[in-house]
Amino acid sequence: MASSILVTNDDGVYSIGLKILYDAVERLGDVVIVAPETPKSASGLGITLHKPLRLERIEYWGLDIYTTNGTPSDIVYLALNQIREKIDIVVSGINIGDNTSIQVILSSGTIGAAAQAALMGIPAVAFSADVQEPDELGDPVYAAYLTRITRLITSHILSRGLPEGIDLVSVNYPRRIGPGTRAVIARPAKIKYEQRVEVNVDPHGRRYYWLYGRIVDPEPGTDVYELKVMRNITITPITLDLYPVNTDSIDELRVLEELVTRDLSRSSSG
Amino acid sequence: MASSILVTNDDGVYSIGLKILYDAVERLGDVVIVAPETPKSASGLGITLHKPLRLERIEYWGLDIYTTNGTPSDIVYLALNQIREKIDIVVSGINIGDNTSIQVILSSGTIGAAAQAALMGIPAVAFSADVQEPDELGDPVYAAYLTRITRLITSHILSRGLPEGIDLVSVNYPRRIGPGTRAVIARPAKIKYEQRVEVNVDPHGRRYYWLYGRIVDPEPGTDVYELKVMRNITITPITLDLYPVNTDSIDELRVLEELVTRDLSRSSSG
Repeated sequence: MASSILVTNDDGVYSIGLKILYDAVERLGDVVIVAPETPKSASGLGITLHKPLRLERIEYWGLDIYTTNGTPSDIVYLALNQIREKIDIVVSGINIGDNTSIQVILSSGTIGAAAQAALMGIPAVAFSADVQEPDELGDPVYAAYLTRITRLITSHILSRGLPEGIDLVSVNYPRRIGPGTRAVIARPAKIKYEQRVEVNVDPHGRRYYWLYGRIVDPEPGTDVYELKVMRNITITPITLDLYPVNTDSIDELRVLEELVTRDLSRSSSG
Repeated sequence: MASSILVTNDDGVYSIGLKILYDAVERLGDVVIVAPETPKSASGLGITLHKPLRLERIEYWGLDIYTTNGTPSDIVYLALNQIREKIDIVVSGINIGDNTSIQVILSSGTIGAAAQAALMGIPAVAFSADVQEPDELGDPVYAAYLTRITRLITSHILSRGLPEGIDLVSVNYPRRIGPGTRAVIARPAKIKYEQRVEVNVDPHGRRYYWLYGRIVDPEPGTDVYELKVMRNITITPITLDLYPVNTDSIDELRVLEELVTRDLSRSSSG
């Protein structure tokens, strides 16, 4: 039986990245595309619980696509409950803008969709490119490279599954790809941006604040460094197990168990 | 010098949880309160980059409070850039509704604020209570317990710092607290909810979908089990290091480095 593949993104149905991702995986199985009707960047793993969602079927890029007002995370659940009985792999992207560093990974909608799939036990890969404009992503030569490498990676993970303890994989493409471009496994940097605030005054005389990020110097070996400085394709395995491995550190925190429990037990007499 | 403490939440300035949290920490240092002007639940680590933010100063709960249209994550950056030169600890909550399981932790705004602080290297604690309504949280006897235990935990972490490898701590309070209530360190469950979709038709004849979660049976030892079944106070240490510790698994993925690099190197001749 053909593999069941869900293609999604967070830039929305009109992003060329969705089309490139579809082209990459279409021959690998039975593909369904479900995308946000408008961009949902920085939605992280947000789920929509307090309002109704829509699911429409449109034709775009010459493809049959479901669109929704929901987030990339919502899409995983809508697809599993309403469209497919079973999904073998979720691929998300190709995002306009890279998703490197833990800071960015945790707030990315592209990776959010992959993470939700991972929580359901479905292998997932998020793809992002270090470009700023749709035109850069859509450049025919560049897009052909993306299609080819994305297919190779998806095909490999679809047939082998993800190694134990790896919940999902995030792939970032450098701005230029050619015959000499290398692919490397890279650990995520902690932060990519130092957040700053610009203060200004609106036409009504009221002050406003605008957040912006200044890229910090990346540490060698991190995804940010390998992508931005070395211009490699970075492959970042991610675990969602948020529990620390350092048992000494956890034991150090255990003193709180006793402190709190003892304090409460005394409250009867006090 | 007094410790600089940031109090925030994701339920917004009008939540009684913010007042209880302030009461808990006010004596521990020099406290500033910055809260969303409206509820920002499920905002995760989302940051607002594409629109201006406001920062107003109001009086509520008899307290001097900054409010903003931004997310809990935005608040950490606004506070650090515009209000305080230095922040020694960020406390977030007390959330109406518990924040247990990785699934919920990753999409929680309460924990999102704490996680952003952690990425900046600031110790942070998120507090949540397994209640559904503000009235339950505000019950004087219950609130007095929350104040007391929240103070104890914050004071301990403020003076000792967080153990190595622990980026932040999430504390969840059970629905009832009394002299016999215990506090335990608990690892997060993977998922708490099985997401379902209810399908319905609106008055205009258009179909809509509504996501809802059905709690899955919690595994013993997890935060969901310790909180919901054992009714303990759960203390969950969290690491944001998303890189897997299993080096064999990472090595298994290394075959992709070679596959992709070799495929690209062949493209010059093809």
